[in-house]
This record gives sequence, C-alpha cells and structure tokens, in this order.
Amino acid sequence: MGTANGVADLRGGIDLGGTKIEAIVVNADNKVLGSARHPTPISGSPADVAKEMAAAMGEAAKAAGTTPNALKGVGVGSPGAINAANGTVASARNLPGWDGSFELGPTLSEQLGTPVFLGNDVQVGIDAEFELGAGRPYHSLIGVFWGTGVGGGLILDGKLWKGRGGAGEIGHMVVERGGRKCPCGNKGCLEAYAGRAAMEARARAKIKDGHKSDLIKIMEHKGRERFTSAIWAAAVEQGDDLAVKLIDEAVVALGVGIASAMNLLDVPAVLIGGGLGVRFGEPYVEKIKAEMADHLFPGHQPPDVHLVGLGDLGGALGAALLARG
Amino acid sequence: MGTANGVADLRGGIDLGGTKIEAIVVNADNKVLGSARHPTPISGSPADVAKEMAAAMGEAAKAAGTTPNALKGVGVGSPGAINAANGTVASARNLPGWDGSFELGPTLSEQLGTPVFLGNDVQVGIDAEFELGAGRPYHSLIGVFWGTGVGGGLILDGKLWKGRGGAGEIGHMVVERGGRKCPCGNKGCLEAYAGRAAMEARARAKIKDGHKSDLIKIMEHKGRERFTSAIWAAAVEQGDDLAVKLIDEAVVALGVGIASAMNLLDVPAVLIGGGLGVRFGEPYVEKIKAEMADHLFPGHQPPDVHLVGLGDLGGALGAALLARG
Repeated sequence: MGTANGVADLRGGIDLGGTKIEAIVVNADNKVLGSARHPTPISGSPADVAKEMAAAMGEAAKAAGTTPNALKGVGVGSPGAINAANGTVASARNLPGWDGSFELGPTLSEQLGTPVFLGNDVQVGIDAEFELGAGRPYHSLIGVFWGTGVGGGLILDGKLWKGRGGAGEIGHMVVERGGRKCPCGNKGCLEAYAGRAAMEARARAKIKDGHKSDLIKIMEHKGRERFTSAIWAAAVEQGDDLAVKLIDEAVVALGVGIASAMNLLDVPAVLIGGGLGVRFGEPYVEKIKAEMADHLFPGHQPPDVHLVGLGDLGGALGAALLARG
Repeated sequence: MGTANGVADLRGGIDLGGTKIEAIVVNADNKVLGSARHPTPISGSPADVAKEMAAAMGEAAKAAGTTPNALKGVGVGSPGAINAANGTVASARNLPGWDGSFELGPTLSEQLGTPVFLGNDVQVGIDAEFELGAGRPYHSLIGVFWGTGVGGGLILDGKLWKGRGGAGEIGHMVVERGGRKCPCGNKGCLEAYAGRAAMEARARAKIKDGHKSDLIKIMEHKGRERFTSAIWAAAVEQGDDLAVKLIDEAVVALGVGIASAMNLLDVPAVLIGGGLGVRFGEPYVEKIKAEMADHLFPGHQPPDVHLVGLGDLGGALGAALLARG
C-alpha cells in the first residue's frame, strides 16, 4: 500500500475508440493528473493499436509527473468482445485487422510494466457516470450512449448489470417491427434510426437520390470524411432539412426505445451520453424525455433524464476505475 | 418454531385473479396439502372480495386438515398497486369497486387469525417458477405471462427485480412505433397485439365489420361471455381464419418484445406462462422462440425458452412463498 498521495495510488485509464485513444492518469480521488489523446491507427494490426495505446499512456503519465510502470495499474475500455480473465479482445470490427482475438491485456501490460484490466467501453463509461458523474444520486439507472451506434448500460442496485456479458444493447431493442435495416443485420432496431452510422448511410442514400442537403458540403468544409457529431449539429443548426428530419427521427426512436426499457426495469434515472448526446446536449435531452412520455407505462412514475456529467472523459475515467484492483 | 412437519410450518397462498380466487395450503416443502377455488365476485366491494378470499382459504385449510388461524401465515398475490408494508391494494381495476385503496392485508389477517403478506400477482408467479418451477436451473430469467394482459417479471441474479415497484411491464414495451392502441392508453405496446383483452376487442370489431369467424359461436356454445384462452385455442384448432390471424400476430409481437428485453438484459432463460401461454403450450413456445430469433442481437447467445412448470398453481404457490416471513 502506498501513502494517500503516493505514486502507488495513481492509476491509468485508456478509452479505446474507433477514432481516438484517450489516456489519463488519476489519483486515488479520481482526479485527472495527466492526459493524452492519440488518433486510433486506421490501418495495420491490433499490435499497432496496442503500441499507440502504450505511447498515449506514456505521455499521460509524463504529464502527471510519473511513468507507466509506477502506476498501480491501467484500465482499458475497449469495443469488441472482452475476456477480462485472460485479457483478450475479439471482433473489435471498428479497429484495424481486429476481426479475430488479440491478447491486448498481456501485450499492453508488458509494454507498460504494470497490470492491465480490460472492460467493455460502454460498460466502463456507465460505471464512471454512476460513481463520479450524473448518476451519483441514483442506485439504479439506464445509460444510453447515442453515437456511431447506440450503446447502453444498466446499473441495477449499485452494480453494473452484464447479463451473460453482453447486456445493455438498448440500441438493438426493436422500435418498429419490420422497420429499417440496422447495421447489426436485424430490422427495426433503435440504432437503425438513431445511430450516427445508420443515419449517415441513410442521408448519403437520400442525397444520391436527389435530396438537397448541405451535410456533404459541411463535412468537406471541416476536412472530414464522415458525418461527425459536429457536422450533424452544424447542419441542424443551419436548418438543413434532411439533417433536421433524420435527427428528429432519431429523437423519436430514442424516446420509444428508452421508454420500453423503462417499462421493463422501472429505474429512477436515465443518462444520455455518446458523441451525439453530448454534442446536442440539454435541449435534446429534453426532446428525448418528451418523446418518452408517450410510451412510458401509465402506472409508473417517469424517471429523471439527464445528460451525462463527465462528457468525453467518462470512458477513460471508467477505465481507470477498473484498475483499482 | 414448530417441528418439521408441525402445523406451525404450514402456510397459505391465495392467488387473487379477475375471474377466480385460488387458495392453497402448503407444507415446509411447498407441497400442496389442500386447495379451493372460488369465483371472484363480479359486483360489490373490496370487502366482499376479501370475504370470498377468507372463505376459500378456510376451505383449503380444511382440506389440509387444519384451520387458517393455525397457519404460520398467508401470502396473497394480487393485481393492482400493492403496498406490502401497510397491507393496502389500490387501483385493482379488474376487481369490483376497487378503484381506490383497500386494507386487504389487515382485513384478511383479522378474518383468518394469522399474518397476511401481500405481493404483486405477476411477481409472485415468477418467483414461484424461479424457486419451484421451470426457472430452477437458472440464476436469472425473464418471465412472460401471456393472458388477458401481457405481464412479466424479472429474476436477476437470484432476486426478483422490482425497480421502483412496477418493473416487468414487458407487455408495455413498444413493438411498433405509432402502432395499435393498447388498453393502457399508449400505442404499439406488445399487449396491444398479444393481450387476450386487446385481441378480443379487435376480433369483435372485425366480426362487426363483417369478417367471418366462429369465435362468438364457440363462446356461446361454451356458455361464456368472453373469449377465454380455451375459446381461442378451440377456434385456432378448427382453423378459424380470424383467430389464426390474431394469434399469429400475437406470436410475432411476443417474439419482438421478448427479443428486445433479451437484448437489454442478456439473461439465459425466458419462461412463457399465463392463460394463453399455458393453454397453447409447447408448440407455441417454439413459435415464439422462432420469432425471437429474427430480433435477438447477433452478438448474443440465444436464451433457453420454456413453458412455465407450475401451470395454474404458480400464482398461489408464489403467494405461499411470501408467507415464509
């Protein structure tokens, strides 16, 4: 055991996303002492991603006045199928060459010289909000990450509910039987209407069909190749019809899906986060809440609905929580 | 404390339904030693219902060779809003004159001369299946009662998940955004497609519009005033087009709604019960399972799907479990 402010109490957290790697070092009070952000490699192998993660962690540690091997441990929030026991990540399809399984834990642990703990990216993000963010007043809650996909997580009676490992797929609750095709292959999922990837695919198809929209112009102006959350927000801001229509449809679908989850679980709170959630912020949290109202079971008390409190850092903070051991 | 087989170890259980009151006496091993079934009063006040419940319990006790005041306690599974602490039941709208709140616990306790414990009818039914029925092999499960309405209950990590008291409203998960009107007042709920009451209303409207169906003839032949589960089963059995169509729609909606719940919770098992569930049995459990397959999240392992194991007695057995104190 180190002293209360000793280096042995410092922990690292890495949020491994499809576009960026966010690394932080926190103290025992979960205060961020150093951070670094690297773009996620878009080609190469899982080993290249691991190397980039180690580099980001090294920088974050340096900014905190320490080195990775002096940390108590490093937690990682990762997409894909996590096996926390043996440190593997499989089928992380948004990451380069990562269709199979890779020993991310052992690899990173060797490079950093400290134990590494893996968790599901969405689940650690929810855990961070529950312990440190907007979820602190509640004992149970539903977290919804409205971003490229629509992820979710459940805190039930103070604990992350994982089911058989994959619980929280609120984005794949059905909002319309026989409805729009979802990236997951099913039909009518919430994510088919509200996921940024699905919305972009639909917008591009509509534009190709001759619908007018400034989405592509805004994207090119910003030098991007995808419709990021900022691009959707800018398009809606300037009243772009197609963007407004698709975002409105997303809000309706979120209201329906979240209300369905509430009717099943009857928890006191819903947190809205994710790239689009954070970007669109409070006014859209209110819009989602209004849509939910039509579908909440009349016998239930409506839940509180909040924006997440930790913004972009939630993932890395939640990862650092894993390293408490 | 009584001896292992002493009368002090006997408990009572009452399942208070909209059409019948089922009372049982069980021993410490939950073996049924006596039972009685009375029709639920269709007019009068909550006090009249309580009197009928006490009479049924008296008969069940007599059949078990004892008297109610010798029982360790009596559990009651009730519809409506239960306050277990003060023994009140409110808004039990299927029961006569029960729009307000009534002190069912104290009233019954005085008449029976033994403590009375109240629980939600669906929740105690699920608890019975979990402890004594088809749910025994599992630590977590979703129970679906396909009957007049579509009720549900969740066992998570060995415990009934109640949320803020009303969890498990799987029947009010949305299967079709903007869809059919539900008895709850919302649109597109699972129950709007699969609840017996909603199906009967739709069938009668279709028949009034000139659709051919033998449902009413079968009902009259059986001397009933409602389309009971037996009537639906008989109509489907003889290939009645309207009945087949409505039951098929119900199966699809159940598949969609249950899959949505699974994607959120990722539990290993689903139990199907309720009047229609028990009546249609295994072949329809398989049909529901097949419909679920189209909507389960591709990354998840499909759950086991079973018919409930305790049949009609589940509610009373679950009620008796409440009286363990």
